[in-house]
Amino acid sequence: MTGVIYGAGLGPGAQDLMSVRSDRLLRNARHVAFFRKKGHAGQARRIVNGMLRDDVIEHAMEYPVTTEIPVTDPRYNEILAEFYEDWAARLKTIAATEDVVVLCEGDPFFYGSFMHLYNRLENITPIKVIPGITGMSACWTATGQPITWGDDVLTVVMSTLSEDEITARAKNSDALVFMKIGRNLPKLRNALERAGRLTDAWIIERGAMPDQTVQKLTDFEGPAPYFSIVVIHGKGRRP
Amino acid sequence: MTGVIYGAGLGPGAQDLMSVRSDRLLRNARHVAFFRKKGHAGQARRIVNGMLRDDVIEHAMEYPVTTEIPVTDPRYNEILAEFYEDWAARLKTIAATEDVVVLCEGDPFFYGSFMHLYNRLENITPIKVIPGITGMSACWTATGQPITWGDDVLTVVMSTLSEDEITARAKNSDALVFMKIGRNLPKLRNALERAGRLTDAWIIERGAMPDQTVQKLTDFEGPAPYFSIVVIHGKGRRP
Repeated sequence: MTGVIYGAGLGPGAQDLMSVRSDRLLRNARHVAFFRKKGHAGQARRIVNGMLRDDVIEHAMEYPVTTEIPVTDPRYNEILAEFYEDWAARLKTIAATEDVVVLCEGDPFFYGSFMHLYNRLENITPIKVIPGITGMSACWTATGQPITWGDDVLTVVMSTLSEDEITARAKNSDALVFMKIGRNLPKLRNALERAGRLTDAWIIERGAMPDQTVQKLTDFEGPAPYFSIVVIHGKGRRP
Repeated sequence: MTGVIYGAGLGPGAQDLMSVRSDRLLRNARHVAFFRKKGHAGQARRIVNGMLRDDVIEHAMEYPVTTEIPVTDPRYNEILAEFYEDWAARLKTIAATEDVVVLCEGDPFFYGSFMHLYNRLENITPIKVIPGITGMSACWTATGQPITWGDDVLTVVMSTLSEDEITARAKNSDALVFMKIGRNLPKLRNALERAGRLTDAWIIERGAMPDQTVQKLTDFEGPAPYFSIVVIHGKGRRP
């Protein structure tokens, strides 16, 4: 093996919120791979628009399923496992002779899809990870208020969890970040209401992107994109 | 007012893990301000070594107290409040005519000192915040393992909390990050032992810096720097 597979954190969406390390790597990359939903350009690919070499070779890794099969269906895991196996093998083949950069929104090791390639490749191929600014950092920055002060506890919760579970977490943490909103928004609202935290919650759509929106969750109408984020700020020690 | 006060996230410590936005801003900055302990160069200032203009004007904001007075002593808050008031006023004076960049390790709104200036200035002076890669991202990247998978819950806990509180958090979350280690390490170890999580814990010193170390916490000997971080990885869904 003479090539390296890079998992490059792109940050939350604005091109200049990428690290200098990822920026340099991308501008010189000959092979670039990225996940996307079939029929879509892909958010990771969109972030790097205009940055890539003219002779770049692009590898679009198209999810075989997203929401067509429920996550709880055993076939969901089987189909995705096969997909990740296949792409891990293809990237390994490229890396036999050349570097390949996998585009990762946010931070590669903080949720996301790259890790499913990583755990199939880490012991058989040189693979390096470049951390990135998370989407949640961009979102709390967008609210114009610090997320945590002093000794605040911060909990990051996926809104796919049950309403009871979300309620318990919301009661039991100073600061909170909720991800994977989308169709889970009504459940999240109920949970925050039950926990007495609804009026403290903010929802941010497309954080750090040109069309970013920031609203109190109680003022928010209409459906939320899957990648919107809800935050509740801590109120810890502040001299 | 014609100037802007910037809180610029520097990321975890490696110069090229800074965002392109912070990098550009710093290289052009005429006024740069940073916190440091008296008699020390300051970690934030160290990160930008070699990047600043020749004619930069540096403003070292030296903490009047760090560990000389316990945080619980009312004088601690009073002395720090006076310190932040004083520097907020000084930065506001500079910003009347010129921009000033405040150097922030990690992400400015994720713990840290900048927010104590921010909340004194946000309504009276133009002030902008640039998010950064957190120290914890660099630390979990250094372990070579993703921190969260699928629907994992992640909890960020300051090790200054009580042993009982830390134990409860450690039992009750999939993935964990512990900050503010230093003299709290023996307490943290006890708490993780009681929660049955000690053997899953990793300690990272100086994440993303040239002398970074990564060890299982059970193998770690000797005192831990205050800015070391302990992580426990989630084990969520992985197709």
